[in-house]
Amino acid sequence: MSLPSQISLREVGPRDGLQNERPVPLAAKLELLEALVAAGLRRIEATAFVSPRAVPAMADAAEVAAELHRWPDVRWSALVASRNGARRALAAGVTELEYVVSAADGHSWANVRRDTATALGDVAPIAATVHAAGGFCEVIVATAWDCPFDGPTSADRVVRVVSEAIGMGADAVCLADTIGTATPARVVSLLEQVRDRHPDVPLGLHMHNTRGMGIAGVLAALQFGVVDIDASIGGLGGCPFAPGASGNVATEETAYLCHDSGIETGTDLGGLIEAARLAQRLVGRPLDSGVLRAGDRPRGPSNSGPGVTKVGRP
Amino acid sequence: MSLPSQISLREVGPRDGLQNERPVPLAAKLELLEALVAAGLRRIEATAFVSPRAVPAMADAAEVAAELHRWPDVRWSALVASRNGARRALAAGVTELEYVVSAADGHSWANVRRDTATALGDVAPIAATVHAAGGFCEVIVATAWDCPFDGPTSADRVVRVVSEAIGMGADAVCLADTIGTATPARVVSLLEQVRDRHPDVPLGLHMHNTRGMGIAGVLAALQFGVVDIDASIGGLGGCPFAPGASGNVATEETAYLCHDSGIETGTDLGGLIEAARLAQRLVGRPLDSGVLRAGDRPRGPSNSGPGVTKVGRP
Repeated sequence: MSLPSQISLREVGPRDGLQNERPVPLAAKLELLEALVAAGLRRIEATAFVSPRAVPAMADAAEVAAELHRWPDVRWSALVASRNGARRALAAGVTELEYVVSAADGHSWANVRRDTATALGDVAPIAATVHAAGGFCEVIVATAWDCPFDGPTSADRVVRVVSEAIGMGADAVCLADTIGTATPARVVSLLEQVRDRHPDVPLGLHMHNTRGMGIAGVLAALQFGVVDIDASIGGLGGCPFAPGASGNVATEETAYLCHDSGIETGTDLGGLIEAARLAQRLVGRPLDSGVLRAGDRPRGPSNSGPGVTKVGRP
Repeated sequence: MSLPSQISLREVGPRDGLQNERPVPLAAKLELLEALVAAGLRRIEATAFVSPRAVPAMADAAEVAAELHRWPDVRWSALVASRNGARRALAAGVTELEYVVSAADGHSWANVRRDTATALGDVAPIAATVHAAGGFCEVIVATAWDCPFDGPTSADRVVRVVSEAIGMGADAVCLADTIGTATPARVVSLLEQVRDRHPDVPLGLHMHNTRGMGIAGVLAALQFGVVDIDASIGGLGGCPFAPGASGNVATEETAYLCHDSGIETGTDLGGLIEAARLAQRLVGRPLDSGVLRAGDRPRGPSNSGPGVTKVGRP
């Protein structure tokens, strides 16, 4: 099994996870950020500068941003969904932005009340503003595999969105399996088509675990050589009021996968499990993470015994 | 991604799943078997001939076995844990048996009150009895990766158990990740060592999804070329009173993985989801299966649109 020696894990729980929850007080959010940093995470999507009416849980984005100086060795980022959001983020001092564009019109309308083409058109002004501030602009391509409204998204369409985003100044691209439908073969097929066209652009993967395929998709991406992986502490995310919704692949499950495969993540599994427990307390319901529930596996020297046929106990 | 064109899926929910639950009435078990057959499954572990005191949920093994003639085109099997169990199974007309041997002494003592060597010694008489009845005897090697009592199980030890079992007449071997700890790299490493030594013996994989790694492990095994895969409808299994326990990889998630990867399973996803719903009703609690909760993905023609920059909606 050919695997990379390390991955670059981006924690998205404070944004993609908490955005679907009842608003969590600022102090509790900061406690969670503290725990994530303590567990070794060094890339964290801290918040989203989006409509406070549409996403009340992210209404305190500027307040969160104002506290990030506490952890100077972390690469903090924020999600934005419009030019206005990008301006607000930069004003709040966050210069690494993820701008989301849905590859499918149906999801684009539901998410930002614009079609894909219109949303895509804003990459140019947003990237220009971010670059003028010395920042970094990633485009997250949502519904890159399937859209809950439009059905399967064609790979051609995704490749065109990626190409236009790069043409307009995106510094990196991340493919998002927004509704958690992609199986590993489809993950690799799309990554391959994007990578073929844009071999030098940083390419990331953002999987949801809605149908239990998240970790397998991450593994397939690692085998393919994509090492920029999003994950969410505790598998946080999904709407508790929408049956079947579910969060991202859990950070602690991703780390468990990696560590046992000889892949460095820079994180400490015990610390991640602690942070996941905290996240669970903050949202007040059991989170969907096997590693959180069951803990690490037994460690220690292998039980090789003195030879099977001679092993005995009275 | 190199994958096989088909797998041989063995449904173990009626045994590995229901054994951990409060006993389900015979009629309900038969209803579940009916649903599993209707979904296309053609290898089903129907029950276990084990101590009714230790596993009350399997006390009706002979009654279940007496009804299997209803579905003559299914390869039915039963699990046994002793010579006596094998005799009872054969007397009840089940001739395909899985005899379980724990590779770790700790689990072996907890499970069958004997050490590994003693349990292993019974492969010879059990295989002989089964073969005399014209049957098929598989040895399931439990705790093949980790033991909850002894810690990690060394690969050498597992290979020795497998070699001795084959030497004593086992027709097939299945490696079981009993406590759901194995990551894909460890799965492949052990499969490789066993396959190297015994290239011609049928080799199967039995994963639990306790830490979210089950589907990724199955995928790794498929890439390696092992296609005899155990799964449990609804991810049934695990003890509801043991925090962190969890069932096998869910049959419907395994089928979802395979079908979207061009791998035939002989099953119908809709039928599997129906059977999983039934299993959920029988045990009276939500089962841990994303495909059960969220259903199939959107299907239909890809949304390629007339070109991204020209797509619009008023």
